[in-house]
Amino acid sequence: MNQPPSAAPSRARRLAEMTSQEARESAEAGDIVLVPAGALEQHGPAMPLGTDTIRAEAVCEDLGRRRPGDVVIGPVLPVGVSPHHLAMAGTLTLTTSTFTALVREIALGLRRQGWRKILVVTGHGGNNAALTTVAQDLLAVDRDLEFAWSPLTSLAGDVVREAGVSEIHGHCGEAETSQMLHVAPELVREHLLEAGVTTMADLDPTSALARSFSQPTLTRPYDQLSSNGVLGDPRRATAELGERILARIIERLDAFVERWSRL
Amino acid sequence: MNQPPSAAPSRARRLAEMTSQEARESAEAGDIVLVPAGALEQHGPAMPLGTDTIRAEAVCEDLGRRRPGDVVIGPVLPVGVSPHHLAMAGTLTLTTSTFTALVREIALGLRRQGWRKILVVTGHGGNNAALTTVAQDLLAVDRDLEFAWSPLTSLAGDVVREAGVSEIHGHCGEAETSQMLHVAPELVREHLLEAGVTTMADLDPTSALARSFSQPTLTRPYDQLSSNGVLGDPRRATAELGERILARIIERLDAFVERWSRL
Amino acid sequence: MNQPPSAAPSRARRLAEMTSQEARESAEAGDIVLVPAGALEQHGPAMPLGTDTIRAEAVCEDLGRRRPGDVVIGPVLPVGVSPHHLAMAGTLTLTTSTFTALVREIALGLRRQGWRKILVVTGHGGNNAALTTVAQDLLAVDRDLEFAWSPLTSLAGDVVREAGVSEIHGHCGEAETSQMLHVAPELVREHLLEAGVTTMADLDPTSALARSFSQPTLTRPYDQLSSNGVLGDPRRATAELGERILARIIERLDAFVERWSRL
Amino acid sequence: MNQPPSAAPSRARRLAEMTSQEARESAEAGDIVLVPAGALEQHGPAMPLGTDTIRAEAVCEDLGRRRPGDVVIGPVLPVGVSPHHLAMAGTLTLTTSTFTALVREIALGLRRQGWRKILVVTGHGGNNAALTTVAQDLLAVDRDLEFAWSPLTSLAGDVVREAGVSEIHGHCGEAETSQMLHVAPELVREHLLEAGVTTMADLDPTSALARSFSQPTLTRPYDQLSSNGVLGDPRRATAELGERILARIIERLDAFVERWSRL
Amino acid sequence: MNQPPSAAPSRARRLAEMTSQEARESAEAGDIVLVPAGALEQHGPAMPLGTDTIRAEAVCEDLGRRRPGDVVIGPVLPVGVSPHHLAMAGTLTLTTSTFTALVREIALGLRRQGWRKILVVTGHGGNNAALTTVAQDLLAVDRDLEFAWSPLTSLAGDVVREAGVSEIHGHCGEAETSQMLHVAPELVREHLLEAGVTTMADLDPTSALARSFSQPTLTRPYDQLSSNGVLGDPRRATAELGERILARIIERLDAFVERWSRL
Amino acid sequence: MNQPPSAAPSRARRLAEMTSQEARESAEAGDIVLVPAGALEQHGPAMPLGTDTIRAEAVCEDLGRRRPGDVVIGPVLPVGVSPHHLAMAGTLTLTTSTFTALVREIALGLRRQGWRKILVVTGHGGNNAALTTVAQDLLAVDRDLEFAWSPLTSLAGDVVREAGVSEIHGHCGEAETSQMLHVAPELVREHLLEAGVTTMADLDPTSALARSFSQPTLTRPYDQLSSNGVLGDPRRATAELGERILARIIERLDAFVERWSRL
Repeated sequence: MNQPPSAAPSRARRLAEMTSQEARESAEAGDIVLVPAGALEQHGPAMPLGTDTIRAEAVCEDLGRRRPGDVVIGPVLPVGVSPHHLAMAGTLTLTTSTFTALVREIALGLRRQGWRKILVVTGHGGNNAALTTVAQDLLAVDRDLEFAWSPLTSLAGDVVREAGVSEIHGHCGEAETSQMLHVAPELVREHLLEAGVTTMADLDPTSALARSFSQPTLTRPYDQLSSNGVLGDPRRATAELGERILARIIERLDAFVERWSRL
Repeated sequence: MNQPPSAAPSRARRLAEMTSQEARESAEAGDIVLVPAGALEQHGPAMPLGTDTIRAEAVCEDLGRRRPGDVVIGPVLPVGVSPHHLAMAGTLTLTTSTFTALVREIALGLRRQGWRKILVVTGHGGNNAALTTVAQDLLAVDRDLEFAWSPLTSLAGDVVREAGVSEIHGHCGEAETSQMLHVAPELVREHLLEAGVTTMADLDPTSALARSFSQPTLTRPYDQLSSNGVLGDPRRATAELGERILARIIERLDAFVERWSRL
Repeated sequence: MNQPPSAAPSRARRLAEMTSQEARESAEAGDIVLVPAGALEQHGPAMPLGTDTIRAEAVCEDLGRRRPGDVVIGPVLPVGVSPHHLAMAGTLTLTTSTFTALVREIALGLRRQGWRKILVVTGHGGNNAALTTVAQDLLAVDRDLEFAWSPLTSLAGDVVREAGVSEIHGHCGEAETSQMLHVAPELVREHLLEAGVTTMADLDPTSALARSFSQPTLTRPYDQLSSNGVLGDPRRATAELGERILARIIERLDAFVERWSRL
Repeated sequence: MNQPPSAAPSRARRLAEMTSQEARESAEAGDIVLVPAGALEQHGPAMPLGTDTIRAEAVCEDLGRRRPGDVVIGPVLPVGVSPHHLAMAGTLTLTTSTFTALVREIALGLRRQGWRKILVVTGHGGNNAALTTVAQDLLAVDRDLEFAWSPLTSLAGDVVREAGVSEIHGHCGEAETSQMLHVAPELVREHLLEAGVTTMADLDPTSALARSFSQPTLTRPYDQLSSNGVLGDPRRATAELGERILARIIERLDAFVERWSRL
Repeated sequence: MNQPPSAAPSRARRLAEMTSQEARESAEAGDIVLVPAGALEQHGPAMPLGTDTIRAEAVCEDLGRRRPGDVVIGPVLPVGVSPHHLAMAGTLTLTTSTFTALVREIALGLRRQGWRKILVVTGHGGNNAALTTVAQDLLAVDRDLEFAWSPLTSLAGDVVREAGVSEIHGHCGEAETSQMLHVAPELVREHLLEAGVTTMADLDPTSALARSFSQPTLTRPYDQLSSNGVLGDPRRATAELGERILARIIERLDAFVERWSRL
Repeated sequence: MNQPPSAAPSRARRLAEMTSQEARESAEAGDIVLVPAGALEQHGPAMPLGTDTIRAEAVCEDLGRRRPGDVVIGPVLPVGVSPHHLAMAGTLTLTTSTFTALVREIALGLRRQGWRKILVVTGHGGNNAALTTVAQDLLAVDRDLEFAWSPLTSLAGDVVREAGVSEIHGHCGEAETSQMLHVAPELVREHLLEAGVTTMADLDPTSALARSFSQPTLTRPYDQLSSNGVLGDPRRATAELGERILARIIERLDAFVERWSRL
């Protein structure tokens, strides 16, 4: 992805690649454990089911290379909370109770082995609420565990707004597709890119209501929002925009990690 | 609270006050069921534990009076998700799994009896994520059930910003206290109102980090944020501001309900 | 309801109306927390769905006014265990596992905040068994927590028997309707009061078997017991009988609380 | 136990002893399945841990011999809900959630295989509430399943009262010990029989409160009720009284089963 | 079953027959608790549903008589994990989560009362995996609890092989039927014994695949394996073979228990 | 790893890399979904925590390349059931209930999207029992779903035996280390390879008992088996042996898949 600074290692550190002794040292050193979380869900006609996981892993890899002394990458969560995409082929979902049990046991397990700071980086917005409930429940269990989570694209809201996107924009849209064109261009079937719903006028009345109000929140199945599962016009996506979005995401996460790792 | 229009009934309709036959008719008429959700948690030295429930009920009551033909008030949820306040006296919390089971069973129960549209109005932001997970899981169970939820104060973000609040502002702060001075002034011990944390500089380093970034999200126990449980300066609260905030909340909810009830 | 003694306050103390500091003092003083539990279920053609909650709250309010130094009213449980009424409109139910999780978390939460004595007052007999299982499980968790629960009408069995009721009598019958005529007459549609099943001869054979034996216990759906959901003849109900029943209930609870609060 | 009528078989029918084909025929014939439920818990200095299971099995065996054409004995539940005895050696308990899951799965499993009528006969009163919650939850799942349960000793309340028992009487007392002297005298260590708590005056104040009121219900650990785990004076127990108690229990169950099997 | 050595008692010790004080002494003496586990499931045209439980109990009884100073028999588990037999009449099953909760609570309950060594003896292979998961989860909870489990027939694999069995052999086959002819001949309907599937050639293709590979493991419903629920030819079973199989099982268990009881 | 046949693609197909439409076609074509399952647990002084996942992924990748028309690789499970390694640094575990919920939801999710054949390939033996319980429970839910699972090393038992290994051999021993030297030599710290427990005589008495009997099964924490977490002598491992072991594993899985894909 982004060019790492010259002193950076060629590859981020991963728990799965450490020995037991190295893991002990990482915990004792106060390392932050990054947990990349994604989804296995429809991403329109042109992008792969694992789009969210791929982006989350790419961001964690970049961050891990930049801060080899501060962060280590933990287990990847390849299936997330995706019931809104179930009507479209290939989508898997976990119930929120299984997803939260999974994250909670990983978090408490890391804590048991000595780590104290965990950052789940989720490429899939459908995981946000469940991650928040994990954070809440952990407060009642272990006050010394610091459990944080972050989405991706919304960290770069300014870059996206500046670039200009469709009135209706989101899943598989300009911003997400651009990121994929930067991190995994070989997985984007560019000839299949096609616009999805791009204006309020395209939506059925209930979906239009849901999209007109950020609050109240009325969750809609995606097949009722868009017949091809796309919100926005991914034909306008570019690798260059993806690079800028990801640079901003990394910059924000890096700033957070930089302060956190000193506490 | 707000003056209802002259034709409005003196009291909103409530499921608990309906007969079985009236409930059947309400469901058949396509009524929206409002479920007020709150919390029983510390609200600083001057406000009552039930502050969030009281505000949610007041808003639902007002909305119910305005739209007697469209909405009916369902069961009130007096305890919410409040683990971040547990270190302070009087706070109760449900685990997120029990809170979501409760909301889910109420939602599916209403659906079984014929209602199709449910709007949980939560006075407590700690319930937001759990409500979202309920909405997500319901998508996989019953696509015809429309389950929405809304917070309160953030619906009136413009009014609050215009009024001007402390750098650090939120729980028990100017906006929340103002609402209580409007809807339940007799429950605000005005002589006990005192400022809590109001600036970044007051926070311990980890809390400052958490507050400096909206994302990543790092949830903190409130006793580590503020020794008296207050964020902001409630001495600046006024009933008049509360009235304006609530008027804006009602206006937004009313606009949502107005469109939804026609679908 | 009943006239409180002259020194009594005009309103019982409620956790929801206390500040955090007042809650701490209540717990330190050894207050008993009353938890009113009800149901949202069919109550025949003339009474509201919330009949059981309304009666439970009225009793707790009265008890709270009588013993302001000993008891405080906690969160109200507006939905109970009502699967036997599901076939009739408006009825909601919780599974017993969700109802017990809810009560258990409230009880352990109160204990965590320092209270040691909890009395759930249930207006709905369908909650009795689940409340007992909560009490049992808590014994294995915290021996110092004293968790009690009480039904309503059966505390006044002598008054009811003396008044004379139908052979088959119970849900929505003379005793329950009388209580509602005393505590919430405006919610009883008196012109819609009609007799339900009143004699063994009215029952289908399986229901007759179930009613002929108090043990073995064979639970029946209410729509199979009575086509209008009523057991007994509520036309014979009077506010005066309701007043006497409630006076006896309060007297018994008051005697229990009086002894308990001294321990 | 009691002398079966001359035409009765020497042994009740048991599911565990039937072939698959015989089970099919039993289900098709509409047989009632008896499920004996007990406990494994302290029964004072002289009686065995399995006292409740032994009595439940004896009663089911007798009933099964009397009504070979109507009932069949299903799986025995040897561990019940006994948290109130945990402080005394040898006691095992299930949580109420595991006990109810067990009973529920057995009931729904029998239903799946074609039986429609189930009668759990519990020798242990601690199981009563959990059995009731199973019955309630099943109503929402399968209206055609008829799930009944019965305790033992309280079916013979008249015989016990007539015989005269201690003021405080119950667990391991005159009635229970008498039953054991009739059904399993070899398991009663008669030389170790000793009185437990027999009068209100023997109880600590909280236990006295709990025993003075049948309602509210305040559940107490048994080691706080009685230092030897006995309520009543088992030295007054006789096999002859046990025979009469059991005869009455059987008579009542037989009357129930007789009517039920014709429906 | 086998002739016990002359000094052996006529009956194994059982928790259910011990007093509380005897249970305390057993725990203090470090006794091993045997938990017989079985199933209630189809066993072909000639054998009873409880075949697995009956064999497990017989083995425990024998072992208990041989080692009266070392082992005591705990609660019997009469229903196991049998979803593969559900399509055939009379079969009950527990979900694996309920079965494991049951075993876990019994194990932790025994531990709480002072026992430290538990041996579940399962007559039903369908329980093996669930017992292993219990053992695994207990490792994270109590490292001093030693939880072991054993199947039956596979302990005597050498005897079975030597005797010669069908190419396809297992459930209700030569080895299992022989055991029943030894321990409970009165429950084997010998005139109904008939061969089931005995060769690979009899199997449908998917079942043949499943049987051709011990690994990967592809679990098949038994009604797809064999129309009468039998694998093997039970007409070749003999009580004498059963006696030898059981002698070998007991010998192996005895050797294990002998070493374990000295640790 | 092994050299794929010349016509094989350079990379196996993965669900995460497919579009929604390609996933639909894969399901319609009857593809077998491979789910690689591993662990994140101590692997001695020289091998990485992710050893089991790495081997499972390598095997699935190889199989996927060999049979591009028959199999597709699904989500990877990077954390398994490892409570026996918890005392050693870096080990994470899931409870068996969370691990089984995860696998079950993935399996039922694949089924919902049209796949019918699932093969979990686990590099970690600690997952075996939990996978079996998933297979069992699924039988009661969906008879048309064919859920299989396979371990790795035991598929090549003949190769391992032939090569000769220590008396005590297993975790991190000759066979496992050899596999890693073949598939991921860069992750084996060869200079840190050291023997663990290699003979019965090295074991503490309880562990010796556990290892002397394959049945009964007595599960031991690994820190009690071996102070460095190694069973066997990995210094004797060679990449060449690893290649042969993996070739045999692939051969066996390939034979299974070849037959299965034609059904």
